[in-house]
Amino acid sequence: MSGLILHEDARSGNCYKIRLTAAHLGIALERRNYDIMKGETRTEEYLRDVNANGRIPVLQDGDRFLPESNAICYYLANGSKLIPDGHFDQADMLRWMFWEQYSHEPNVATLRFWKRHVGIEALVDAQRIQMTGKREAGLAALDLMDRHLAERKFFVADQFSLADICLFAYTHVADEADFDLEAYPDIVRWMERIMTMDEHVGLED
Amino acid sequence: MSGLILHEDARSGNCYKIRLTAAHLGIALERRNYDIMKGETRTEEYLRDVNANGRIPVLQDGDRFLPESNAICYYLANGSKLIPDGHFDQADMLRWMFWEQYSHEPNVATLRFWKRHVGIEALVDAQRIQMTGKREAGLAALDLMDRHLAERKFFVADQFSLADICLFAYTHVADEADFDLEAYPDIVRWMERIMTMDEHVGLED
Repeated sequence: MSGLILHEDARSGNCYKIRLTAAHLGIALERRNYDIMKGETRTEEYLRDVNANGRIPVLQDGDRFLPESNAICYYLANGSKLIPDGHFDQADMLRWMFWEQYSHEPNVATLRFWKRHVGIEALVDAQRIQMTGKREAGLAALDLMDRHLAERKFFVADQFSLADICLFAYTHVADEADFDLEAYPDIVRWMERIMTMDEHVGLED
Repeated sequence: MSGLILHEDARSGNCYKIRLTAAHLGIALERRNYDIMKGETRTEEYLRDVNANGRIPVLQDGDRFLPESNAICYYLANGSKLIPDGHFDQADMLRWMFWEQYSHEPNVATLRFWKRHVGIEALVDAQRIQMTGKREAGLAALDLMDRHLAERKFFVADQFSLADICLFAYTHVADEADFDLEAYPDIVRWMERIMTMDEHVGLED
């Protein structure tokens, strides 16, 4: 693969997942940055040429555009060591990736975004009233991960896969949303395993 | 595939997706029903034996348990005609499935659930205040689908795939959440294409 362009906001964990996947596969990505806080992914040009849904990340491969972070990771990794063999394990990997987008990201990542980028004092009532529910759901997500990892080194099939990459992205910065990761020792050990791999890159690398 | 058990609440669109996928593939499923309104997926036994996340659907294959509706559909369909050839189209199919879980289901399905199963008068404040935002996001999701379908018969690669099945599940009952589907003529034509296929089964079949 070559000539791939990642349309991103570099601060986003969803964009970081893709860079981390590419690093593990030795794939080069040209990076184009957009500031979502300045509405740069909601311009007429962006909606027309990159993503009608107005979101990042989007991977451009020639004249084709692929949105949705976890689908992009799958595209880069299809046929590689980052996807386990066997239909059950492949589906189990996707299971954690869907769970990440439904039960983890809308809680952990949204609270981080509100605190770090929007600012708690700038939230509207409909956001502020959700903070308690998102906090509880985020704690439940981290608890489920910690219990799953108590008996495993990685999420699926005893091997490092896209499930780990996609869950690592927002888990390792959960402290920025005031989640205390020290309360989850098996998550901490799993993160250390990932961060000490030769191919690893950080969110701000 | 045989001996598969679907742990479900039959009213859920997420469970229906799996039955529709199985129907298209000629796969038999044993169905075990749980009433989520009675907490039957939050019992100690269910959390221990079926899904620590306390949700349906879960597919049981022997002694292995697979949660997350879209991952289950992928498991059933892996290697079949319901997944297009080619890495880009496969990722593009997953893109719509991730989008469904992030941008469609939490809006269209949640509003349907609140109206039909919980009852608007029984909502707590933190839910009621989200209704306007979920309505707007649901309308945006249906609008994006309609524009995408204006030039296509199916979502990906000009063929019926899991993307269509997963999006059909809650779209075709969006009227139960007071969305006016007649306002989206290309969605209506796409639904008719799906509902007239020989293998089709309905939500209540």
